[in-house]
Amino acid sequence: MEKFVFFGGKGGVGKTTVSCAYALKCAEAGLDTLVVSTDPAHSTADVFDQAFGDDPSAVDGHEGLWAMEVDPDEEVERHMREIRRRMNEQVSAAIVNEIDRQIELAHRTPGAYEAALFDRFVQVMREADDYDRVVFDTSPTGGTLRLLALPDFLGEWIERLVAKRTKSVDLFEKAAVGGREARRKLDEDPLIAHLQGRKEKFEFAGRTLREDAAFFVVLNPDELSIRETERAVAEVAEQDLGVEGFVVNRVTPAPDDDERGRGATWLRERVATERERIDEIDREFDEPVVAEVESRVREVKGDLLAAVADELAVDVDVASAEA
Amino acid sequence: MEKFVFFGGKGGVGKTTVSCAYALKCAEAGLDTLVVSTDPAHSTADVFDQAFGDDPSAVDGHEGLWAMEVDPDEEVERHMREIRRRMNEQVSAAIVNEIDRQIELAHRTPGAYEAALFDRFVQVMREADDYDRVVFDTSPTGGTLRLLALPDFLGEWIERLVAKRTKSVDLFEKAAVGGREARRKLDEDPLIAHLQGRKEKFEFAGRTLREDAAFFVVLNPDELSIRETERAVAEVAEQDLGVEGFVVNRVTPAPDDDERGRGATWLRERVATERERIDEIDREFDEPVVAEVESRVREVKGDLLAAVADELAVDVDVASAEA
Repeated sequence: MEKFVFFGGKGGVGKTTVSCAYALKCAEAGLDTLVVSTDPAHSTADVFDQAFGDDPSAVDGHEGLWAMEVDPDEEVERHMREIRRRMNEQVSAAIVNEIDRQIELAHRTPGAYEAALFDRFVQVMREADDYDRVVFDTSPTGGTLRLLALPDFLGEWIERLVAKRTKSVDLFEKAAVGGREARRKLDEDPLIAHLQGRKEKFEFAGRTLREDAAFFVVLNPDELSIRETERAVAEVAEQDLGVEGFVVNRVTPAPDDDERGRGATWLRERVATERERIDEIDREFDEPVVAEVESRVREVKGDLLAAVADELAVDVDVASAEA
Repeated sequence: MEKFVFFGGKGGVGKTTVSCAYALKCAEAGLDTLVVSTDPAHSTADVFDQAFGDDPSAVDGHEGLWAMEVDPDEEVERHMREIRRRMNEQVSAAIVNEIDRQIELAHRTPGAYEAALFDRFVQVMREADDYDRVVFDTSPTGGTLRLLALPDFLGEWIERLVAKRTKSVDLFEKAAVGGREARRKLDEDPLIAHLQGRKEKFEFAGRTLREDAAFFVVLNPDELSIRETERAVAEVAEQDLGVEGFVVNRVTPAPDDDERGRGATWLRERVATERERIDEIDREFDEPVVAEVESRVREVKGDLLAAVADELAVDVDVASAEA
């Protein structure tokens, strides 16, 4: 398995549960494992009955397991502050006010946080030297994955800007005495440096996601979930990334063979419908169903997590990345 | 009940099913009803086994019922084209290229579509004269609701701009002969007209949502769903909007009293857990649980929809809006 493991899928299918169970499995196999939760409902805290912050902290009672919770709102704040600071540095004072208003406007606009979140993911991946495995309880979605195309796009922009600026610096040099000063200015151009930084960041992200990351889709055995999965697989494929397989979560248990009554009938029919859906997944996708996890009567936490981890037939081996 | 009814709640709880069932109930009570679906998985089409587009069309076999599906991706395209067109009109040709790049960048940025979607909602509400009731299978979320604060924000911006421009026009008039020409230019200023239009649009939205809309939260009887609901209720309250009540969907049925076995045990424990959760909703929120809808063994469509509609104890009466 690759170092970075993402469990994607639509909301409510149980990504956090599956991620925590898998992280637990990895830790129990002796890997130093970090689970990164992004759920605004902070459910990693519920699963382990322990509060986590923006930096990794050890999970009580589980050796080799760390967890962190990324707060998307806070990431947006940070992002906006950074943009504002940079703008103030680079732009003539005259239009700073107008830009401040625009930033505020953008901040009120929904969705800024997906971008901020992706930035944070990249940072976590960059600083993950201490861990053998990092498990994310979500996967970048279509809009975010499209950010991986940014390096090409920014590259072009940077080239055009450099060409433009080189020209003006050349003119300046021809007119000026010495000229060394002007040339140095181009190297230090803060806008170009910033764009270059962004470009490198997204190049790193693209490279890491392609070479050292595995994507799983968590789904429930119902039609809607399968349809969403088609979209998720297509979006991931669009960026030359591959989905390793599917984790079918919340599979209804069958009653005993000799059970009769309203409950048993309901369960049997439900199990049959779900079996149809799982067969459909097998038929429609190239990627395998790697695990089926039974639906629990209560929320998965404490000892139940270990039981789920036992059912989660997802490989933890580090060496298989090279296979 | 108010004219505009929103069924919000987190992904996967069954908002589209509940919305379609409620719309069916309204139509059967004699109201001309439009159901607006925004689910990218296009599930209204599945529920009624019929394709719907961006304009309302009659639902086969159900008198008084219309449906439309808003495609968020298409809305974003339209939105971006419009911004580009307006920019091209208002901005000197010299920076149009740069702006085009910026727009493209923004387009690659995730989340633009929530804003575009909200724009479309407002348009639907504005053009809903033909219907007695309009049912939306989603509710604006926090980020989008914050857009309702835009009028104040834009008002301030417009005032500053008008003041600035009035001053320059005054200067121009003093210098020029006649001056009528210049004054007229201010009235026609396309940027100010645009901002004014946006302001009026969001004022309409805020007014309509406050006075003629009802918000319901659909949830499943589990902890995570309840926690999300706390957030959703708080977000709606933040904008002086009120949640009317909760629809608890996917409630597990109890087995017969005399059933014994693995299945019956599982069901009984599950029912007990869900009952705890529903009691928790009753205790923690001021708003009532208006309906409990039983979990089905198959996806809700065709005849099953009518069965769900029967269970959905949400008032359809138009007159009660004045009560």
